[in-house]
Amino acid sequence: MPPVPVPAEIDAFLAEPNPAVVATVSPSGTPHTAATWYDWEDGRVFLNMDEGRLRLHYMRQNPAVALTALGAGSWYEQVTLLGRIVSFEDDPDLAGIDRLAIRYDGKPFGNRDAVRVNAWMQPERWTSWPLPR
Amino acid sequence: MPPVPVPAEIDAFLAEPNPAVVATVSPSGTPHTAATWYDWEDGRVFLNMDEGRLRLHYMRQNPAVALTALGAGSWYEQVTLLGRIVSFEDDPDLAGIDRLAIRYDGKPFGNRDAVRVNAWMQPERWTSWPLPR
Repeated sequence: MPPVPVPAEIDAFLAEPNPAVVATVSPSGTPHTAATWYDWEDGRVFLNMDEGRLRLHYMRQNPAVALTALGAGSWYEQVTLLGRIVSFEDDPDLAGIDRLAIRYDGKPFGNRDAVRVNAWMQPERWTSWPLPR
Repeated sequence: MPPVPVPAEIDAFLAEPNPAVVATVSPSGTPHTAATWYDWEDGRVFLNMDEGRLRLHYMRQNPAVALTALGAGSWYEQVTLLGRIVSFEDDPDLAGIDRLAIRYDGKPFGNRDAVRVNAWMQPERWTSWPLPR
């Protein structure tokens, strides 16, 4: 798998609000996956999770993560990024989850009592299929 | 996350040809993800991979896998299975990949020179959202 940066066409694909699945690794070495909203900014992946999520617990112990984004129109288009979480940030005013809710859902996040955490993933390697065309 | 078996509604969801992402763990403890076809039979997940796939290499060293299936109509519906690969089988006549190609694509697999491997995942735990309704 080639190193980042990704080519322009992959960058444009990742900028779309695609369905995605993020994987983390448990302390016992088993993988965990979950569907996720994400955003793409300057070659990094923005994620936001409820404080209680298992994947957040796992990321804090092992920052290695993988993310596969599928084409919103055709999931035969796919981009996978392998990398690491390089920062966690509390999201007390819910600006982080609102950013994703607006991107995907067109409106701010519904649960204003949620306790959320932002995480930034720095990709290191990538692969795709069938892109780039 | 509750143990298997999954409830009837989850079983019915998994029987549909949904988009899915499978995760494996590399020998260095980092996750790897890829979009995948799958089938669901008697509570187990059927996968088929090209012999050269990185995830097959990883599965053979660490059989722990995770799979998230997304709703074909709405990816807000999601089911995640955590488990292990319990058997690998060569697929010399391509019956395994044809099974998946017909399920997803309506016709046998195109590349008749491919070298493919079947793998069966035994789920151990599952989670879903928002299913069951």
